[in-house]
Amino acid sequence: MIVVMKPQASEPSIHAVTKYIEENGLQIHLSRGEEVTIIGIVGDKSRLSTENLRVFKDVDRIIPVTESYKLANRKFHPAPTTVKVGNTSIGPGNLTIMAGPCAVETQEQLLCIAREVKAAGATILRGGAYKPRTSPYSFQGLEEEGLKYMQEAKAATGLSTICEVVSLEAIEAAGKYVDMIQIGARNMQNFILLKEAGQSGLPVLLKRGLCSTIDEWLNAAEYIIAEGNPNVVLCERGIRTYETATRNTLDLSAVPVLRERTHLPIIVDPSHSTGSYKYVGPMARAAVASDADGLMIEVHNDPAHALSDGPQSLNFAKFTALTEELKPFCHLMGRSFHEQ
Amino acid sequence: MIVVMKPQASEPSIHAVTKYIEENGLQIHLSRGEEVTIIGIVGDKSRLSTENLRVFKDVDRIIPVTESYKLANRKFHPAPTTVKVGNTSIGPGNLTIMAGPCAVETQEQLLCIAREVKAAGATILRGGAYKPRTSPYSFQGLEEEGLKYMQEAKAATGLSTICEVVSLEAIEAAGKYVDMIQIGARNMQNFILLKEAGQSGLPVLLKRGLCSTIDEWLNAAEYIIAEGNPNVVLCERGIRTYETATRNTLDLSAVPVLRERTHLPIIVDPSHSTGSYKYVGPMARAAVASDADGLMIEVHNDPAHALSDGPQSLNFAKFTALTEELKPFCHLMGRSFHEQ
Amino acid sequence: MIVVMKPQASEPSIHAVTKYIEENGLQIHLSRGEEVTIIGIVGDKSRLSTENLRVFKDVDRIIPVTESYKLANRKFHPAPTTVKVGNTSIGPGNLTIMAGPCAVETQEQLLCIAREVKAAGATILRGGAYKPRTSPYSFQGLEEEGLKYMQEAKAATGLSTICEVVSLEAIEAAGKYVDMIQIGARNMQNFILLKEAGQSGLPVLLKRGLCSTIDEWLNAAEYIIAEGNPNVVLCERGIRTYETATRNTLDLSAVPVLRERTHLPIIVDPSHSTGSYKYVGPMARAAVASDADGLMIEVHNDPAHALSDGPQSLNFAKFTALTEELKPFCHLMGRSFHEQ
Amino acid sequence: MIVVMKPQASEPSIHAVTKYIEENGLQIHLSRGEEVTIIGIVGDKSRLSTENLRVFKDVDRIIPVTESYKLANRKFHPAPTTVKVGNTSIGPGNLTIMAGPCAVETQEQLLCIAREVKAAGATILRGGAYKPRTSPYSFQGLEEEGLKYMQEAKAATGLSTICEVVSLEAIEAAGKYVDMIQIGARNMQNFILLKEAGQSGLPVLLKRGLCSTIDEWLNAAEYIIAEGNPNVVLCERGIRTYETATRNTLDLSAVPVLRERTHLPIIVDPSHSTGSYKYVGPMARAAVASDADGLMIEVHNDPAHALSDGPQSLNFAKFTALTEELKPFCHLMGRSFHEQ
Repeated sequence: MIVVMKPQASEPSIHAVTKYIEENGLQIHLSRGEEVTIIGIVGDKSRLSTENLRVFKDVDRIIPVTESYKLANRKFHPAPTTVKVGNTSIGPGNLTIMAGPCAVETQEQLLCIAREVKAAGATILRGGAYKPRTSPYSFQGLEEEGLKYMQEAKAATGLSTICEVVSLEAIEAAGKYVDMIQIGARNMQNFILLKEAGQSGLPVLLKRGLCSTIDEWLNAAEYIIAEGNPNVVLCERGIRTYETATRNTLDLSAVPVLRERTHLPIIVDPSHSTGSYKYVGPMARAAVASDADGLMIEVHNDPAHALSDGPQSLNFAKFTALTEELKPFCHLMGRSFHEQ
Repeated sequence: MIVVMKPQASEPSIHAVTKYIEENGLQIHLSRGEEVTIIGIVGDKSRLSTENLRVFKDVDRIIPVTESYKLANRKFHPAPTTVKVGNTSIGPGNLTIMAGPCAVETQEQLLCIAREVKAAGATILRGGAYKPRTSPYSFQGLEEEGLKYMQEAKAATGLSTICEVVSLEAIEAAGKYVDMIQIGARNMQNFILLKEAGQSGLPVLLKRGLCSTIDEWLNAAEYIIAEGNPNVVLCERGIRTYETATRNTLDLSAVPVLRERTHLPIIVDPSHSTGSYKYVGPMARAAVASDADGLMIEVHNDPAHALSDGPQSLNFAKFTALTEELKPFCHLMGRSFHEQ
Repeated sequence: MIVVMKPQASEPSIHAVTKYIEENGLQIHLSRGEEVTIIGIVGDKSRLSTENLRVFKDVDRIIPVTESYKLANRKFHPAPTTVKVGNTSIGPGNLTIMAGPCAVETQEQLLCIAREVKAAGATILRGGAYKPRTSPYSFQGLEEEGLKYMQEAKAATGLSTICEVVSLEAIEAAGKYVDMIQIGARNMQNFILLKEAGQSGLPVLLKRGLCSTIDEWLNAAEYIIAEGNPNVVLCERGIRTYETATRNTLDLSAVPVLRERTHLPIIVDPSHSTGSYKYVGPMARAAVASDADGLMIEVHNDPAHALSDGPQSLNFAKFTALTEELKPFCHLMGRSFHEQ
Repeated sequence: MIVVMKPQASEPSIHAVTKYIEENGLQIHLSRGEEVTIIGIVGDKSRLSTENLRVFKDVDRIIPVTESYKLANRKFHPAPTTVKVGNTSIGPGNLTIMAGPCAVETQEQLLCIAREVKAAGATILRGGAYKPRTSPYSFQGLEEEGLKYMQEAKAATGLSTICEVVSLEAIEAAGKYVDMIQIGARNMQNFILLKEAGQSGLPVLLKRGLCSTIDEWLNAAEYIIAEGNPNVVLCERGIRTYETATRNTLDLSAVPVLRERTHLPIIVDPSHSTGSYKYVGPMARAAVASDADGLMIEVHNDPAHALSDGPQSLNFAKFTALTEELKPFCHLMGRSFHEQ
């Protein structure tokens, strides 16, 4: 932590700051430049609410020099993490494709989609049973009934399964029926839910919040890992910007940035980010080329009649064509593609 | 709902859309322009997942013509709502000042702050007992102990009280000790929490999400009201933009926009939005002049030693000077200012 | 300038950085913390492309500690500047109201509007003769003809005048007919135009770019002042965000931030920022209460038939009512309001 | 154009709107729904300032149904355009790599870089001679001298050349020495410059503005084409968002969106968008996989000593390794890669 004083900072102002730091059991390192005086803080900063230094007279700004996340930080854990999910795993060396409907609708529908996405190369079946919806009057999901359908689809196909959770009850139910839980964009800073997901020990797919920075996202992952659950996978799904041509703006640069900052696996969701099936293919290829560990893609048997997010869902023919198209990109990236 | 077809839309494409709409029990109103064909949909749209129309061939876009929120909508409830909170109320005719520390720290501290903010004209004491923090290693609040201090401060001063909640447990605890609950920016689309807040029947201060549109915010309010709880107050607290000179960008234009769209009272928080005590005064005056129903201001006995958000807190002298300064603006706006 | 090295930075890495700095004629100040090593740079940084230090091995980040603008900087010029415009002036002690049509349309129209806005208390007539429009097929302005109408309106009413410029030709023409030139949001970083505006010596109203930070804006002002023209006034006119309820998001917090960083006068434009006449009144009041030095408001004799930006223009009745309403706010802020 | 009236719109309000439209020589198409009345406008809308309809009583909103750009619009020109630049061309079937220093510094440096980038597979040499810089005190470019170095580098290597222009003078100079001009992000809505670029007839690389929507960008292209110059290539270079981990946020989804809306070729700049050489490789691969027609990459012989944008420049070894890596991706996309 560095405290930068204003150019005209008086001696008493500088002294007040150094005194406050030292009273909190830390050492200071004073640097008097021609223009400004800079105070470095040495020692265990958790003893100090350093942000408060900003209220001292003549303080210009406070600059943190280390990240607040440790367990998710690549600096301290250089080797990439592989997360096991049911009978498959996410991480270096292979490309994971999660596919399925935005919302689980009926048993037959889910089974039908599961068979098709498996045939096309997906290893994890996604399906929402608890849907966070902007309007209280929109379809909110089948809840536990939907989870049972997921379990049946898994039994029938051998696919691993993932479902979004929105509450402790949903986590407990999901723990009985599916292999991985998802925390959605709107709940990325629902810290209670993060802690509960951490305590569950289940593999967690943590989607990026709509306007979360990468550092806030890694701090959210830290909440889960700090509860003793290291099985966290990050999912870039688009951020909110002024551009309205796509539903959100897919921040694909987040993939190399995350690679540098964290050891956790990275998934990209080209469906929610673009909001249109027409853009899913190009963005899926781009995500593979950016070195993502996997993709989450919405697939529906009949997009025009989907209860949620139809416009961004691929039908079976498009999804199968896309996975075929992805294979050579996958191999170029040194990743294996699951074959039946 | 209006469906705009692409310029070159074929007859079969147009027919597929009109057939789908009519099969769902709705009527259509066809308008063939020189350039494009437009299909209006007449009837109860809740029968139809209209968004899915976007996947039909040759559909260019779908345009909603009515808002999805009804109970929060001024079109259907023209008179402004007044929300009663303990022995005070928020709404037309008076200016409500909520003040207090970001986080409740000790019993003595809270009591001391309560007495000072009351003397300066605040009617509601704010204080966080459950703190959503970006890092799991930051101070997370005193929880129920903090709520008890709030109750004691109320008993000692007669101030009404408000505290943020982050879970059902926190709502239940808050219901025992304080007059109003707050749902923070990070939980604005935690729909489970919104429903629970609705079921509690307690007055709710709903802060705007960091990157929420005004319409998403009103839909979040709708979640609470739809559970039978009409006591919702909205709080603008800044949105996330590219500008870093302030912590967030206070969107003060939201005040007149909300006035037009909703009958709910509107509070402005100049502390969290700007992130600096230096900007609180000008933005508090501006908020009053924009016709807000009240302000939420962070006040601390010793900002330099606050456990949370010290830099944006006013000390007692500054807060007292500010409320004095606000009075004539308040009167110009036709609002009464609470006097001891 | 501070160079923060990575936690595991090697001695050769640190040496490479210090060597590079010293070879450029600067001194270094080394601070070895428990976690990281920090290198302060002392001396005239203009000798060094310090940003390039980021490419050195083991460098984590480069932190500037001083602003790049000097002439616009309050640190070096504490007293507020007053800018003289024709027979009026903008700065402390009074509230300047600039009003008029978005685009000059006819001589009669402009004269009619000039008389009305003068009667209501405006001291500067605005009117666009060179219009930057998103589409090449929109009305682009009357150019020099429009400037002549401005001159005639000035002669008839005694109002000072301002007109936007988009090229050197427009600056030269404007210099003949009007008192102040405006550089619009889209040209805020058209550095050629900024230099030419600086060389003209004319008072300049510099609007903030749609996605410019406050520091970029002050650097743009620096371009003008560095050419020997200190007569710069800043105009906040809304920034681009994800919110679509208003045309742009008025960043009113920019007023106190600018007050702290610069000595230049500050104007707020509630018309372009909100995009709707319905929101102009509340935001004009808020701007005055935030301590702006003036307002720029669009007024039109017949908004429904305006050739540009009708929806955000006030008609005469609304403008006159607004200036009446603003007077007591103006007096509360210790500013005089021009009376006929 | 569709006018949506408010739910409670009165007959006189509806009549006022239809009368205004008809008086402007257009036909109306009235649609009275259960909830709202909708007025379609039929005919040549350029006769009407339709935006002004928003000021009529009881008008809820105006919805455009056709884009304002025609010449750049794929709807009217379905076949993709190929733009010839010197002895190479940009468009379907091949991948164009533009490479070179951010700023031209010396004759030797440029020649050295030109030889290296040509050997690695680039076909167009980039180099800035007119630099738009945030601060007036930063290096602003060698101007015409730099253009001459470009010409010499072309003569020596056979590479085609591109240089940014910021004024009419720069366009005229560039016309003498280089094959293609670039309009930078900050000048994307400098409409005077766009028109001059159009009149020059030179191939133009039009970079996206920092906060421009895709539609504004296509309208800017329209300005150039409307002057009779169809040789426009678009370049995505990142947009401004709240995320600070990268310099800007590369909006790669813009590639498929542009493909749908326009016939113009599309280039991606992974250097300026990410701001760090470490992220250039992954984003270059992703851009190729998204079906971009080419890349613009900053290459410098000695990034640590570059006069501008060193941190994002690749050195020769990294650039050569990258082009090798890109070849198979290029072939997968059905594009040929220029070989020596």
